[in-house]
Amino acid sequence: MDKPLCIVAGVGPGNGLAFCKKFLDEGYRVAILARNLERMNEYSRASDDVYPFSCDLSDSNNIKNSFSEIVTSLGVPSVVIYNAGSALFGTPMDVSPEDFEGAWKLNVLGLLTVSKIVAPLMKNNGGGSILVTGATASLRGGAIFAAFSSAKAAQRNLAQSLARSLGSEDIHVALVIIDGVIDIPITREFFPNKPDTFFLQSNAIAETYYNLSQQHSSAWTFEIDLRTSCEEW
Amino acid sequence: MDKPLCIVAGVGPGNGLAFCKKFLDEGYRVAILARNLERMNEYSRASDDVYPFSCDLSDSNNIKNSFSEIVTSLGVPSVVIYNAGSALFGTPMDVSPEDFEGAWKLNVLGLLTVSKIVAPLMKNNGGGSILVTGATASLRGGAIFAAFSSAKAAQRNLAQSLARSLGSEDIHVALVIIDGVIDIPITREFFPNKPDTFFLQSNAIAETYYNLSQQHSSAWTFEIDLRTSCEEW
Amino acid sequence: MDKPLCIVAGVGPGNGLAFCKKFLDEGYRVAILARNLERMNEYSRASDDVYPFSCDLSDSNNIKNSFSEIVTSLGVPSVVIYNAGSALFGTPMDVSPEDFEGAWKLNVLGLLTVSKIVAPLMKNNGGGSILVTGATASLRGGAIFAAFSSAKAAQRNLAQSLARSLGSEDIHVALVIIDGVIDIPITREFFPNKPDTFFLQSNAIAETYYNLSQQHSSAWTFEIDLRTSCEEW
Amino acid sequence: MDKPLCIVAGVGPGNGLAFCKKFLDEGYRVAILARNLERMNEYSRASDDVYPFSCDLSDSNNIKNSFSEIVTSLGVPSVVIYNAGSALFGTPMDVSPEDFEGAWKLNVLGLLTVSKIVAPLMKNNGGGSILVTGATASLRGGAIFAAFSSAKAAQRNLAQSLARSLGSEDIHVALVIIDGVIDIPITREFFPNKPDTFFLQSNAIAETYYNLSQQHSSAWTFEIDLRTSCEEW
Repeated sequence: MDKPLCIVAGVGPGNGLAFCKKFLDEGYRVAILARNLERMNEYSRASDDVYPFSCDLSDSNNIKNSFSEIVTSLGVPSVVIYNAGSALFGTPMDVSPEDFEGAWKLNVLGLLTVSKIVAPLMKNNGGGSILVTGATASLRGGAIFAAFSSAKAAQRNLAQSLARSLGSEDIHVALVIIDGVIDIPITREFFPNKPDTFFLQSNAIAETYYNLSQQHSSAWTFEIDLRTSCEEW
Repeated sequence: MDKPLCIVAGVGPGNGLAFCKKFLDEGYRVAILARNLERMNEYSRASDDVYPFSCDLSDSNNIKNSFSEIVTSLGVPSVVIYNAGSALFGTPMDVSPEDFEGAWKLNVLGLLTVSKIVAPLMKNNGGGSILVTGATASLRGGAIFAAFSSAKAAQRNLAQSLARSLGSEDIHVALVIIDGVIDIPITREFFPNKPDTFFLQSNAIAETYYNLSQQHSSAWTFEIDLRTSCEEW
Repeated sequence: MDKPLCIVAGVGPGNGLAFCKKFLDEGYRVAILARNLERMNEYSRASDDVYPFSCDLSDSNNIKNSFSEIVTSLGVPSVVIYNAGSALFGTPMDVSPEDFEGAWKLNVLGLLTVSKIVAPLMKNNGGGSILVTGATASLRGGAIFAAFSSAKAAQRNLAQSLARSLGSEDIHVALVIIDGVIDIPITREFFPNKPDTFFLQSNAIAETYYNLSQQHSSAWTFEIDLRTSCEEW
Repeated sequence: MDKPLCIVAGVGPGNGLAFCKKFLDEGYRVAILARNLERMNEYSRASDDVYPFSCDLSDSNNIKNSFSEIVTSLGVPSVVIYNAGSALFGTPMDVSPEDFEGAWKLNVLGLLTVSKIVAPLMKNNGGGSILVTGATASLRGGAIFAAFSSAKAAQRNLAQSLARSLGSEDIHVALVIIDGVIDIPITREFFPNKPDTFFLQSNAIAETYYNLSQQHSSAWTFEIDLRTSCEEW
């Protein structure tokens, strides 16, 4: 029998890669999606069970094509991690309508498009998990996060609609609120004077995603927050 | 000196009309915007201080043109009420991407577009109020409100970003969470067996909007909920 | 016919006094309760419609006696403002069990005791309002607000229980989340370098309390926040 | 070297017992506390690593004595689960002041008392976890849960104060919001017509508690909800 399939939609050097490694370690095949195919090829050389796909998650047609290809070649996923999204700074007066719409397409419309594809397949397969990467901005509209926080709030309520409508079909939708800065080269450059304890470690975050995907249907989580022990919150 | 100007963006037979009447009673000129110019003309016959403008609030260019016309002819508003939005039913699996995007454009992008136009004018004028009509769906992603609740959550976080970034410029942004069903002919038809106490009265809602617009800057509200005394919540 | 009666339970130099003045201005008789009878006597000299009562709101028997006296001499209140509570600093490790319990008795048990007395009387009288003074700490357990924030959260959920169980009897229960520092001599001393815009003005706060007490039962508020236009939140 | 110690404060036939089993399976010694020593003795016969202690968690002196005994005989705990609390029905008008205070002592003062004892010991030991059992009532004051929901809200804010003040000392405080009814004989009797999927399974809940206790300090959770896949929420 095939190993179960995990799809990580949105793979950068931080969480996405850590999710890939963790699910590999737990015996999954892992399809990874990002715009940058080259970087993903580097990751996929590490294991025969990693399958990279180029995909712009802010483009619905691109999503449809990539997921069609994945399902045809690898089958129905047991776990989908929707990990798209990058912080975008600016007040409502500063943000351009294009960036504002782009953040919404990437964080919200992309999640809807992916869910419309995978939920019916998961249902026929007896269930599955859709795990969504949120942020503090999912809960709070900061002055300088006009685009990001508006999109993340829309994503959160969509994830709730998904969880409430798909739960009885054994599809578990959960939202992880990441509160803080993840330890990757670019954030270390941005915060050069912060101690190690300032940064969330992607490997630790990946443990929680994996545990969520394994929860028994009699005790599912919808929302969980993650921050370092030293975070001011 | 001219009477102060209130713009009600989104006028139907319920709240929009009640807002118009209340601000008229309090000595404002009122510009009302909706797609249906005919119905608004009917309202505007009641007073020389009501100015109807045809506008589709889900269309940014349309908003820009209408507001340009309003400001040119009537001046800078003291109060803008962003009252767009109509509930749309359907789970994430049922909603079409077009309706999902339409709800976002009407509730969120429209608010951003309006704010980008009026906030700089209000700032130059010494301040103003932007009041936004939210709903229970602003806080909760119900199973069958995929489009509406996702859009309303995005609108709420955008309103927070606006409030936080514009407060020190004396622009007061507030969100009213309307929890329940407003008493208009169409809702009476939809809920024929409900008692009168089931329905929120628009005139009562309008009192709260007016009070918000008059709050002193040392004690501003961002969020306030409204429901009937008999609501189950 | 008698003027309607407002009871302000918890009167200091800031909000309590402002509530007293506002309801006086609007034609109410006002009973004011505090431990410090002397200071209240000073307030009450200003008007024949102010009635001071000495009461320790952390003592249930004291509350029962005072309210019995008020009802006997002045009748059933239309409005009760539960304005008890003073911030107490300290982490959970620092706070004494006695102070922790004292904060709970003052903020929570006192509200229950008052409500058990006035709600049945209001019901027989055709309704009334119970307005509760909350704080940011009602929503958030800060590190150094162990006693205050735990008590305020308990008060908030009790206020919700009250609102939900008494609404259909025309008793309106509302919670005002005051987010910031009120302008009174002691806070000016504590924050000597803050600008005027840092401080909430009690007179402005009192406007909102009065407006809440006048809401029509078809559009009642449960929760409303208040902060200055310049607050970082 | 000794096995690590987990203390489960509040053990009934549902969660408490499941926590005990799970931590036993993972190689912990487990001290269990409840008023009913007899029932606990039955549990403890199953393993030499289970240590029962009689304790009324609504009585601070009783807590101090029991924890003193535990620490003396078994050492400093790595994990403490504060699992006290039983739902109590009644509106604010119905609940007696004694029951209202009892719920607060059990859910809130007991947690403070336990934390004041174990946090300094954990700190000296290099850290530890305090896991608190919350409920939907932690977030919402239902009409007929006056005592329970007020106490649970107070407990939640206290847990936040604990988490915020102890995090930098490597003490992880987390709150688990259990949303629903746990499968034990008494709840099956109370809901005789509900399907199996209506009930949360304690064994599944225990998995999440264990995972929380193992989180790396770079990605700690404060709050997590648990409900069945079929729950209406």
